[in-house]
Amino acid sequence: MRLIVRGGTVISAQQEVRAEVLVEGERVLAVAPPDTELARSFAAAADRVVEAAGRYVIPGGVDAHTHMEMPFGGTFAADSFETGTRAAVWGGTTTIVDFAIQPRGGSLHQGLEGWLARAEGRCAADYGFHMILSEVTDASLAEMDRLVEEGVTSFKLFMAYPGVFYATDGEILRAMQRAAGIGALIQMHAENGIAIDQLVLQALARGERSPKFHGSTRPAVLEGEATHRAIALARVAGAPLYVVHLSAAEALAEVADARDRGEPVFAETCPQYLFLSDDELAGDGFEGAKFVCSPPLRPRAHQAALWRGLRTDDLQVVATDHCPFCFREQKELGRDDFSKIPNGLPGVEHRLDLLHHAATEGRIPLTRWVELVSTAPARMFGLFPRKGTIGPGSDADIVVYDPSRSRTLGAATHHMAVDYSCYEGLRVKGAAETVLVRGRVVLEGGRYVGRPGDGRFLARGLSRALG
Amino acid sequence: MRLIVRGGTVISAQQEVRAEVLVEGERVLAVAPPDTELARSFAAAADRVVEAAGRYVIPGGVDAHTHMEMPFGGTFAADSFETGTRAAVWGGTTTIVDFAIQPRGGSLHQGLEGWLARAEGRCAADYGFHMILSEVTDASLAEMDRLVEEGVTSFKLFMAYPGVFYATDGEILRAMQRAAGIGALIQMHAENGIAIDQLVLQALARGERSPKFHGSTRPAVLEGEATHRAIALARVAGAPLYVVHLSAAEALAEVADARDRGEPVFAETCPQYLFLSDDELAGDGFEGAKFVCSPPLRPRAHQAALWRGLRTDDLQVVATDHCPFCFREQKELGRDDFSKIPNGLPGVEHRLDLLHHAATEGRIPLTRWVELVSTAPARMFGLFPRKGTIGPGSDADIVVYDPSRSRTLGAATHHMAVDYSCYEGLRVKGAAETVLVRGRVVLEGGRYVGRPGDGRFLARGLSRALG
Amino acid sequence: MRLIVRGGTVISAQQEVRAEVLVEGERVLAVAPPDTELARSFAAAADRVVEAAGRYVIPGGVDAHTHMEMPFGGTFAADSFETGTRAAVWGGTTTIVDFAIQPRGGSLHQGLEGWLARAEGRCAADYGFHMILSEVTDASLAEMDRLVEEGVTSFKLFMAYPGVFYATDGEILRAMQRAAGIGALIQMHAENGIAIDQLVLQALARGERSPKFHGSTRPAVLEGEATHRAIALARVAGAPLYVVHLSAAEALAEVADARDRGEPVFAETCPQYLFLSDDELAGDGFEGAKFVCSPPLRPRAHQAALWRGLRTDDLQVVATDHCPFCFREQKELGRDDFSKIPNGLPGVEHRLDLLHHAATEGRIPLTRWVELVSTAPARMFGLFPRKGTIGPGSDADIVVYDPSRSRTLGAATHHMAVDYSCYEGLRVKGAAETVLVRGRVVLEGGRYVGRPGDGRFLARGLSRALG
Amino acid sequence: MRLIVRGGTVISAQQEVRAEVLVEGERVLAVAPPDTELARSFAAAADRVVEAAGRYVIPGGVDAHTHMEMPFGGTFAADSFETGTRAAVWGGTTTIVDFAIQPRGGSLHQGLEGWLARAEGRCAADYGFHMILSEVTDASLAEMDRLVEEGVTSFKLFMAYPGVFYATDGEILRAMQRAAGIGALIQMHAENGIAIDQLVLQALARGERSPKFHGSTRPAVLEGEATHRAIALARVAGAPLYVVHLSAAEALAEVADARDRGEPVFAETCPQYLFLSDDELAGDGFEGAKFVCSPPLRPRAHQAALWRGLRTDDLQVVATDHCPFCFREQKELGRDDFSKIPNGLPGVEHRLDLLHHAATEGRIPLTRWVELVSTAPARMFGLFPRKGTIGPGSDADIVVYDPSRSRTLGAATHHMAVDYSCYEGLRVKGAAETVLVRGRVVLEGGRYVGRPGDGRFLARGLSRALG
Repeated sequence: MRLIVRGGTVISAQQEVRAEVLVEGERVLAVAPPDTELARSFAAAADRVVEAAGRYVIPGGVDAHTHMEMPFGGTFAADSFETGTRAAVWGGTTTIVDFAIQPRGGSLHQGLEGWLARAEGRCAADYGFHMILSEVTDASLAEMDRLVEEGVTSFKLFMAYPGVFYATDGEILRAMQRAAGIGALIQMHAENGIAIDQLVLQALARGERSPKFHGSTRPAVLEGEATHRAIALARVAGAPLYVVHLSAAEALAEVADARDRGEPVFAETCPQYLFLSDDELAGDGFEGAKFVCSPPLRPRAHQAALWRGLRTDDLQVVATDHCPFCFREQKELGRDDFSKIPNGLPGVEHRLDLLHHAATEGRIPLTRWVELVSTAPARMFGLFPRKGTIGPGSDADIVVYDPSRSRTLGAATHHMAVDYSCYEGLRVKGAAETVLVRGRVVLEGGRYVGRPGDGRFLARGLSRALG
Repeated sequence: MRLIVRGGTVISAQQEVRAEVLVEGERVLAVAPPDTELARSFAAAADRVVEAAGRYVIPGGVDAHTHMEMPFGGTFAADSFETGTRAAVWGGTTTIVDFAIQPRGGSLHQGLEGWLARAEGRCAADYGFHMILSEVTDASLAEMDRLVEEGVTSFKLFMAYPGVFYATDGEILRAMQRAAGIGALIQMHAENGIAIDQLVLQALARGERSPKFHGSTRPAVLEGEATHRAIALARVAGAPLYVVHLSAAEALAEVADARDRGEPVFAETCPQYLFLSDDELAGDGFEGAKFVCSPPLRPRAHQAALWRGLRTDDLQVVATDHCPFCFREQKELGRDDFSKIPNGLPGVEHRLDLLHHAATEGRIPLTRWVELVSTAPARMFGLFPRKGTIGPGSDADIVVYDPSRSRTLGAATHHMAVDYSCYEGLRVKGAAETVLVRGRVVLEGGRYVGRPGDGRFLARGLSRALG
Repeated sequence: MRLIVRGGTVISAQQEVRAEVLVEGERVLAVAPPDTELARSFAAAADRVVEAAGRYVIPGGVDAHTHMEMPFGGTFAADSFETGTRAAVWGGTTTIVDFAIQPRGGSLHQGLEGWLARAEGRCAADYGFHMILSEVTDASLAEMDRLVEEGVTSFKLFMAYPGVFYATDGEILRAMQRAAGIGALIQMHAENGIAIDQLVLQALARGERSPKFHGSTRPAVLEGEATHRAIALARVAGAPLYVVHLSAAEALAEVADARDRGEPVFAETCPQYLFLSDDELAGDGFEGAKFVCSPPLRPRAHQAALWRGLRTDDLQVVATDHCPFCFREQKELGRDDFSKIPNGLPGVEHRLDLLHHAATEGRIPLTRWVELVSTAPARMFGLFPRKGTIGPGSDADIVVYDPSRSRTLGAATHHMAVDYSCYEGLRVKGAAETVLVRGRVVLEGGRYVGRPGDGRFLARGLSRALG
Repeated sequence: MRLIVRGGTVISAQQEVRAEVLVEGERVLAVAPPDTELARSFAAAADRVVEAAGRYVIPGGVDAHTHMEMPFGGTFAADSFETGTRAAVWGGTTTIVDFAIQPRGGSLHQGLEGWLARAEGRCAADYGFHMILSEVTDASLAEMDRLVEEGVTSFKLFMAYPGVFYATDGEILRAMQRAAGIGALIQMHAENGIAIDQLVLQALARGERSPKFHGSTRPAVLEGEATHRAIALARVAGAPLYVVHLSAAEALAEVADARDRGEPVFAETCPQYLFLSDDELAGDGFEGAKFVCSPPLRPRAHQAALWRGLRTDDLQVVATDHCPFCFREQKELGRDDFSKIPNGLPGVEHRLDLLHHAATEGRIPLTRWVELVSTAPARMFGLFPRKGTIGPGSDADIVVYDPSRSRTLGAATHHMAVDYSCYEGLRVKGAAETVLVRGRVVLEGGRYVGRPGDGRFLARGLSRALG
C-alpha cells in the first residue's frame, strides 16, 4: 500500500516547506521536494494520492492528557474511549495518552488492566497510558519498574484531593526517587489541596455555594506554592518533573525559574486556560458549572503570561485535560454546592483548531503550533520519532489541514458526547480536512471513515525531553 | 532612687553619642549631653553613679527565642529558668521570650499556666512567652484571642515533627487567619518535616547513624521550600509571618523576595548559623552530637548569605534558640541513632558578645549590633519602647559594655548549666561589665549581685514590626 | 535661653511617645517623660513654653534636593535662597541641601563660592551644598578632597544633558573611584540622555512639539537602563551610589536588586512622582508645561511601585528637586518646542504635608514619615545627629505639627515665588504650626517671624548611610 | 549526479535516526529509512556511495562569526579566506559568515565590495557576510535596506573601541530602529569600552603591562552592563538583538531575563569561553598573549554558567570569532603593552570537535550539538533550511563524522595558518571523516580534495529566529 500526500506545505516544529509525503504501509517513507523525479515516480505508482494543495500537512496531534470514561464522584466522564477518540480524530489528534488509575487498595496493574480492557478495540486514535498512583507504598513503587517495561513510563501524583488521590510530600519524594532511578517521569497535579479544602469549608460555611466560589477557593498562589514545592522535592530526589494543566502565572514563574537553573522541569497548559477566564465562572446562576475544572479558570491577566510561556518554551506542551461531564445530571450534582460539581471540561476535539487560530493572530508561529500539539508531547512521553513528526520511518499519522476554513464551535456540531461546549459560538479559523492514522485515511471530505479499533495501544519509551 | 550612668557612649539602633543616662526608679528619665548643667545637677543628687568611661552604654539584650526546662524526648533542656536567665544576664541579655507549649489534648492556658509557674520567682531577667500551638482546633483558635489580651501575642507553629508539633497546611492557614484578625504574629519552624522524615528513615535503613547524618537528611532546599510555603499561606491568610531560626540561603532568598514585594514577612537567625557550620557535625565519632539542632548547621557558604541578610535587613533579629542538653546522658541518648539525639544548643549567654565581635571585624556597624540583639526583637514582639531602647520612660535595662575586654569562651567559664560549649576555645572581644534590670544593678565588677525573682513576667503588646 | 515644647507626641523614625522637649540655646537638652519632676522643674524655669497638646513634635524637615536661583537655559529658577528657604520653613523644612555648580572651564571652588555668596545672609533655613561636577578632569577630581574637608561631601553627575552636565561612563568611573577613596557620595541623574536626545530629535522631526512629548521621549526603560549602568560602574569603582529623583518602577527594581546583593546603593524619590502622573502632561494645549521635569512624570502605575519602595526601604529619602519656573515667560520659552521648556517644578513647601497626608491614608506609618523627610536625609548627607532627630545635643530644629488641620493647596496661598502650583486644589491634612530653627521660633500663629540670615551654612560630614 | 550516504545515524537538532541520505546534484533529495526499497533502488542507481556505518551523518557546520584577513592595528588576521575556509572544512564547517567592514568615511557597499573581492574564487566553504557599521549616519542607515536585499541581513555594532568601531547609544538606537523596520538583525559587541579604556589607562599608568592585565581591565560586570544596555535600547527600538561572543555569567543573566520576558534577544558564545579561562592569561611572561581576545577569557566559574545557558537555550549559537594572529610578529606587537596585542584567537577548525567532545562527556545531547553548530546559526542568519539541516531540498552540505576517533590538537597538525594553538595538547574525541559541500566530496580519507572556489557567496534571507 503506497500513498502520497501531494502539493501541500509540510510544517514541522522546525520549518515550513513545500514537499510531498511518501507513505508505504503504516509508515512514512520519505519527504521529497515537489517536482523531482523521485516524487513523480512515487506518485505514479502510488495506490492513493491525497491532494493537499493550499493545505498544511502536519503530523497528527498528540493529546497527552485525557480522561475517557473516568469515574468521578459517582459518575463517569461522558466520553467513552470510542466517542472520545473519534472526536479527537475529527480535530486532527491521532494519539492520546489517557490516565489509568490505581484502585485504592489495589495494584497498579489492576488499574492498568481495567483501562486497557476499556480501550481495547474501541479507539479511533492510537492510545497510551500514564498511571495515576493512588497509593504510594513499597508495593506500588516496586510495580513502577515493570510498568515502564510495559510502556507506561509516566506516573501522576496529586497534591490535592486528600482521601482520593492526595500524596504526602514524603510519598511524593519516594515516588520521585523511584522514577529517577528508572528514567520515568513524574506528572504533578500541583495545587495545595490541604489548604484549599480549608477554604472550601469556610466558603460553604459562609453560604457561598454557587460555581464562582469554586474559583475563589482555589487561589493562584496555592498553585504557585504547590508547583514550587514539587520542584523542590524533585531537586531533592534528583528527578525530572512534569507539571500538568498549569494555569497560573505564579506557577509558571516557578517553572521558569527552575528551567533557568537548568533543572529538568516541564509543564503543560490547556486551551481552557489560554482562551477562557474566571469571567465564565461568574456567570448567572449555575451556568458557571460548565466551566468548573481544577485548577480553576483564572482571571484574564494570567492568559498573557501563559501565551508568553508558550513562546519562551517555559511551557512545552498544550494538552486538553479532556474530562467532559454533561451539564444535565452530571454538572447538576453540584447545583447546591459547588464542591460537588464534577471537575472537568470537554476539549479533545478543539485543541489544534484553537491553537491554529492563535497562530493566525500572530500569538505563535506555525512551527510552534505543530510543536506544541504534536512534536513536543510525543518527545515528552516517549513516542518520538514514531509520533510527532513526519519523517523517515515515523508512523504515517498525517493531518491535511485547511487553514482557511472558518467555523463556529458549538455543541450542535461537535463530536464529543457532551451536551454543551465551552466555546459555544466561538468563530475559529482552520480545520482538519483529511486525517491518516498509520497510513489509513480515517477522515476525509467531512466524513469519518474509520472504525473502532483503528487505534492501538502504544507501549511508550522513556521521555526524550530529559536528553 | 536616682542613678546616673556617666561618661559612656550611648549606642542605639540609630546612633552613637557621648551622653549620660539618667535613671529614676525603674525607668529611664532622660539621656543628656555630658557637660551640661542638667547632667551635672542630676549626678550631684543621684543615689548612685555608674561610671562608663571608655564603655558602651546599650539597652539590655532581648533574646526572643529560648527554651528553658523544655521537655524533649523524655528529658528536659538543661537550663532552668533560674540558671538560664542568670546566664543571660551575664551575657547582657535582660529580657527573654520563652515558649510555652500547649499540651496535646489540653488547652493553651494549661500550657501557659505551667510555664508561668515554672518561671515565677526564679528569673534573673524579665520574661515573656510565645505560645506553641500543638493542636489547631476550634478551641485552641478561640483561646488565641484571650492570650493576646493576657500579653501572649505570638504563636508558633511547626512544619516538622509530625505527631508532636506538626500542623498541616490547612491548620496553619486557619491559625494565620485568626492571627491576622487579632493582630498577633505567627512564628514558623519552616522545614518540610514530612519529606525530611522520609530521608531520615532511608538514611537509618542504609545504616547511617552518626550525627553527621542529622545534617544530610535535612537539606537546605527543604527549609527553602517550607519557607516559601509559609509565605504563600500567609499571603492567602493576609497575615504577617515571622520565620524562626532561619539557617539556609535558600530560605533567606524566599524571605527577601517576599519583603521586596512589600509583604510583612520577618525572620530571625541564630549565632550558631552565623559562626558554626556542618563541619562541626562531621567531626570524629559522636562529638558532632554537641552541634545537633534543627534546622541543622549548614555548609559554610550559607554564612555569607546570612551576614548579608543581617546587613540588608532581610533578617531582622538574632535570637539564640537556646535549648541546651548535656553531652553526657542527654545528647548520648542518640549515640546509636542520630534521630534520637535531643535537638538543641546552649547559647543564651554569648549572643551579644559574638555579635559584638562580628562588629569589631566590620561585619555589621555597632548600631546594627544593638538593633539586632535588642531594639528589633523588642519591636517585633511588642516590648518596644519599654524594652529595646534607652529613652524617656523606657525600662532602665542597661548594659555597660566593655568593648576592649578579650575572653576565651568555654564550658569551664560559662554560666549555663550544660557540660560543653559550642564555642569552646573561641576568642572574642567584648563583655558586659555592669548590667541593670529595671534600674537595679545585678551584675557588676565580675559578680552577679541579683537574685531569683528580679525578673518579672512581661505582658507583651502587639508587634511594632507590622507598622 | 531655655525653652520647652510641652504636651505633644514626639515622633521619631523609631517611635511615637508622649514627651516634653527641653531646649537650651540652640540645642536640645533632653526629651523627658511628661509628669516628671525633671520636666516640671525645667518648665518652671524656662524662658518660653511652646504648647503642643494634640500636636506632633518632629525634627525639622531636611530637603536634600533643591535648586534655588538655578540658571537653566538662559533663565533662573524663580525662587531665590530667600524666598525658597522661607517657603521651606512654612512647610516645616528647616534644612535644605542645594546644588552648587562647577562652571564649565572653571573650578569646583569657583562654583561653590558663587553659591555660598548667593545664599549668605539670606536664608531662613540652614543650608548645605552638594557639588555638581560639570567637568571631570584631573583638576576637578583633585578638588573633591578639599571640598569634603570644607563640608561638601556629595557630588552629582549626569548621564544626560550632553554638552551641559553629561559625563561619560569613563568620567563617571573616575569620579566614583575618587569618591570611594575619600568617603564621599556620588549622586546620579540616571537617564540615558544620549538615547533620549535621539528620540527628542525624532519627535521634533515628526512635528511633535507639545509638552506631552517631553514624557514620551524619555521612556522609563531608559531610566532603568541608566540606573543599572550607574550601579555597575559603582560596583567596579567600589563606591556607594545615591540615585536622585528616581521616578520609574524599572529604576527602582535595579536599586532593589543591588540592595538585595548588599551593595551600598541608595535612592530618593520626589512627591511629584508619588502624587502626579503623565496624565498632567497630556492636558490641553500648553498647560502640561507646568509639569515638565526630568525624569518626566510617569504613567500612574509607577506610583504603586514607588510607594512600595518607600515601605520596603528600597527608597530611603523623599526630596523635592525644587526647581520652580513661572508658567509665564519661563515655561513659555518652550511653547513651540517642548525641548525648550525649562525643566523643573516647585515643591519645597509641600513635602511634609503631602507625605503626612499619605500617612493619614495608611500608605506609610508616621514614624516612616519622619524618617523619610528628616532623619534619613540627615543621615544620608552627613548631618545626623545634628539634624534629623530630636535628641540630646542635636540642633533644636523642631516642628510642632497639627495633624488635624485641613488645607487646600494652590498658588494663591503658597509662599513659593512661582505663579502656579502643581497641586492646585488638592486638599491635604496637616500643617506645620510652630517651627524652631536652632532653638529660635521662626513660624508661629500663622505668621513667619524669622528673618533672612537665620539659616546658616552647614559643613556636612560623611554620609552615615554607608554603615 | 546522484549520491547516497549509507548506513549511518543521521543526527538533526531533533533526533538521531538510522537512515540513508539521498543526494541529487547539489541538493538533498530525501532521507529514507534503511532497508527500504526506495533506499535500495536509489543506491543501486547512484553515481557514488559514501559509506557511513558506525558514523554520524550531520548537516555541515555553520560558523556565524569569523574574521578572515581582518585588518587590526596595522596587521591582518593570519588566515586568508582560502586558508581559513579550508581549515573550516577540515573541521566539518561548510559555511561561514564573515564580517565585512564599512571603512570610516566610506559607504557600506565599499566595505562589502572589498570583502566580496577578497573571498571570491578562494573559498573552500560557502560564505556570507554580516556588515560592521563603523559609522552610523543617515547615509549608512539608508544603505542597510539595499544590503538586506543583497543578502546581507545582519549588522554589527560595537559598544567598545571608541574611534574605531564604537557607536554611541544614540547611534545604536537609530540603527536598531532601522533594523526593526526592515527585519534585519543587530549584532552587538557588548562591553562598556568607555569605562574599560579608563581602566586600561589606569593599569598602564600603574606599570601593569603584561597580558594578564588585558583580563583584569575588562571586568565581567562591564560586559553584563553593556548587555543590559543593549537589551534596553532594543526594547525602546522594538528590535531584536543578537549578542556576539558572550563570555560572562553576568551577561548571560541579562539575556536570560530578557528571554523570560519574551523579548527577541539571542546570544552566541565561543569555544574559548567554554573551554579556556583566565588562568591561560596569567601564564608566565608573554605566553598569555596567545589568549588575548575581547571579551577576555573569564575566571573558570563562568564556564558552568555558559554550559547551563547552552542547555537551557539561553545561549543559542556557538561560533568561533575566529581571528588568528601569529604569536611571532603579530601578538608580539604588544610585548611591552598588553593593550597593543592584537585581539583574537584561532578556532574555526575545532568548533565541532570541541563541542562533540563535550557531548561525549554528557554536557549536551548530540542533537543539541548539531543544533548549536549548524541548525541554530543557519536559522538565526537566514540560511535555513538551505543550510543547517539534512532535509528535502536543502543543500547537500553533509559531514560524515567519526565519533570514536581520538586526536590531540595542536599547531603541528592543525590547518589554520597560525603558529600556535589555544588547545595545544588537548585530547578530543571525534573527527570529520568525509565532508560534502553542496553534493561534492571535498574531504575524504584524511585528504582535502576540494579547491579554492568550491565555496560560493550566500545571499542570506531574514533571520528565522524571530519567529
